[in-house]
Amino acid sequence: MAKPESTHQVSTSPDVSLDELQLAVRNHSLPLEALRYPITPIGMHYLLIHFDIPRVDPSQWRLVVGGHVRAPLTLTLDDVKRRPAVTLAVTLECAGNGRANLSPRPVSQPWLFEAVGTAEWTGTPLRPLLEAVGALDGAAHVVFTGLDRGVQGGIEQHYERSLTMAEATREEVFLAYAINGQPLPPQHGFPLRLVVPGWYGMTHVKWLRSITVVTRPFRGYQQEPAYHVTSTWDELGEPVTRMLPRSLMVPPGIPEFLPRTRQLALGRCILEGQAWSGWGRIVRVEVSTDGGNAWADAELGGDGGEFAWQSWRHVWDADQAGQFELCCRATDSAGNVQPLSAPWNAHGVCNNQVQRIKVVVAHELPPAQAPADGLAN
Amino acid sequence: MAKPESTHQVSTSPDVSLDELQLAVRNHSLPLEALRYPITPIGMHYLLIHFDIPRVDPSQWRLVVGGHVRAPLTLTLDDVKRRPAVTLAVTLECAGNGRANLSPRPVSQPWLFEAVGTAEWTGTPLRPLLEAVGALDGAAHVVFTGLDRGVQGGIEQHYERSLTMAEATREEVFLAYAINGQPLPPQHGFPLRLVVPGWYGMTHVKWLRSITVVTRPFRGYQQEPAYHVTSTWDELGEPVTRMLPRSLMVPPGIPEFLPRTRQLALGRCILEGQAWSGWGRIVRVEVSTDGGNAWADAELGGDGGEFAWQSWRHVWDADQAGQFELCCRATDSAGNVQPLSAPWNAHGVCNNQVQRIKVVVAHELPPAQAPADGLAN
Repeated sequence: MAKPESTHQVSTSPDVSLDELQLAVRNHSLPLEALRYPITPIGMHYLLIHFDIPRVDPSQWRLVVGGHVRAPLTLTLDDVKRRPAVTLAVTLECAGNGRANLSPRPVSQPWLFEAVGTAEWTGTPLRPLLEAVGALDGAAHVVFTGLDRGVQGGIEQHYERSLTMAEATREEVFLAYAINGQPLPPQHGFPLRLVVPGWYGMTHVKWLRSITVVTRPFRGYQQEPAYHVTSTWDELGEPVTRMLPRSLMVPPGIPEFLPRTRQLALGRCILEGQAWSGWGRIVRVEVSTDGGNAWADAELGGDGGEFAWQSWRHVWDADQAGQFELCCRATDSAGNVQPLSAPWNAHGVCNNQVQRIKVVVAHELPPAQAPADGLAN
Repeated sequence: MAKPESTHQVSTSPDVSLDELQLAVRNHSLPLEALRYPITPIGMHYLLIHFDIPRVDPSQWRLVVGGHVRAPLTLTLDDVKRRPAVTLAVTLECAGNGRANLSPRPVSQPWLFEAVGTAEWTGTPLRPLLEAVGALDGAAHVVFTGLDRGVQGGIEQHYERSLTMAEATREEVFLAYAINGQPLPPQHGFPLRLVVPGWYGMTHVKWLRSITVVTRPFRGYQQEPAYHVTSTWDELGEPVTRMLPRSLMVPPGIPEFLPRTRQLALGRCILEGQAWSGWGRIVRVEVSTDGGNAWADAELGGDGGEFAWQSWRHVWDADQAGQFELCCRATDSAGNVQPLSAPWNAHGVCNNQVQRIKVVVAHELPPAQAPADGLAN
């Protein structure tokens, strides 16, 4: 099929253009030290927003559930909240996480390693709602349409994505109106968003306005050509679905403002972080302090639940001064292992290569600023 | 005085390096469409964090108020909350806002135009607390020290800044423990931060651990050489203090994902935004649709209070197809006017040059995606 023109730009420079910077200052990733929180506080969870954040008047808002169904429904926000409620901790990661580490670099949101977060979402399960409207014979897919609107690939569109009926009716799929016990803030999809535990972030359509049952595969822009793994520009490739395993580490020591190199004094250091996969539980996290040559098993926390990241920790005896490159890698119960280097693809998606953190271990930290005692200067 | 080595790096490329990108994905600016909210929802307010976000146990946390005083105090968070409370809407802007538009570009957090936000902060006034500890003769400055720690300019430091006693004891200065009616989230300085209405963001020290009265000027790194306006690398220059006037506009129409060019159909268009200054009330906002040649007065909202941004609006009859460059500029009651282009300085601070938004007005928007009706593809 013909690709819209803007789908496949790449840059051979590691430096990021002004256009990409415009995205980078709007969207944001998880500050890595926020991996210390099992549930990410609001404002530290990653955000990727294709167009503008809609400002929705909840009294005017309606959700239309229809299409190839027996009894279409139009629901107010109160109607949605009166339905059975579930609360679930879910880790969400952007499919483009890691993109800016690629060479050549697909031109889009320039994520490094940290486009992730774990929130406690509250909402109502989707399956009973689909049962209530009653899919007719031949119903095969469900399209989720957001209120957010813009132009991508030369096409004017609302953001929309679909799931097969089998995926949409899985027990864990729900429509969320709260995060961490609070109404969704605008940037997380107020008043209602889709949550599909285990899947990359593009699936969790925000600012829902309609859910439409259809008979044929949906081929809107965000479904295809976007969010596919393809190494050649002539092929559509494979659709992005569930999150590959990934582990991230809280950078130890203290940072330099710029660059973000870490400084650490000699001694015992606790390395800690989180790991997750959309394909199964994390069964192993390994840590390397020499850039990925030698690996040691980290201790798994056993926390996190079925769809949330699991904590890990490892004691590192940093008893030698010098420069170190710390890495961690996760293995899930399906046997997927994080690669040291992931195969390149044109959209820069599903890249779960291991994080690398440069640390300088020294006998002492750099010269300290004199304390503010009134005599110091 | 000798400058630490990392103070004055500049880049002649408009493209942003990987080091700067590491800052850009951590910190984030206000999505411009969030200018529609008089009070910025948590998670959309700008953030600039020099080092790591500390994770503070509130039961262990103490604020030490001491130095050149008669009766030093150590306060728990409950002690702070039992003191008289104030709530005030305050606009905060990063002193480095606009930096990435400079050429050559000072290498630091690469802000475009949007490093701002307005929150409703709740806390306790500082002056009565300083009166309670009783400054001794010769007390002249007050140093505010945060728990955040790192290396900048080759110096290991806690983030700390000072105010003169006269500035610190102004009626509107307070210590905030809540934002928008909620306890501070970690990224905004939990459990306590300084708020100095009217001043650029570097002043509002987060994660406060001590307040120290001193007799001589404080010369820690963040006080000097950082946050000074200087055009030559041999001079310290003038310290950054209050916010210069600035106005920002909600980009009209719909965005392209990349680049962020706006698309607009012919017709009447409401241009709207916010404007603020630390030097007085905003008395005028002007709008240009031709890149800053012709200007028309916008209507001021008269809202916002003494220290919060004020809304403005202007009706634009977009009755011709073509490309337009929209600008807005603010004037404050002290007579300061936003410049079309601000003088370059080495730190890239206090740059309040007018925002420019590229808009394509067309008879119709680009081809629309077919609706998800099951028959469309």
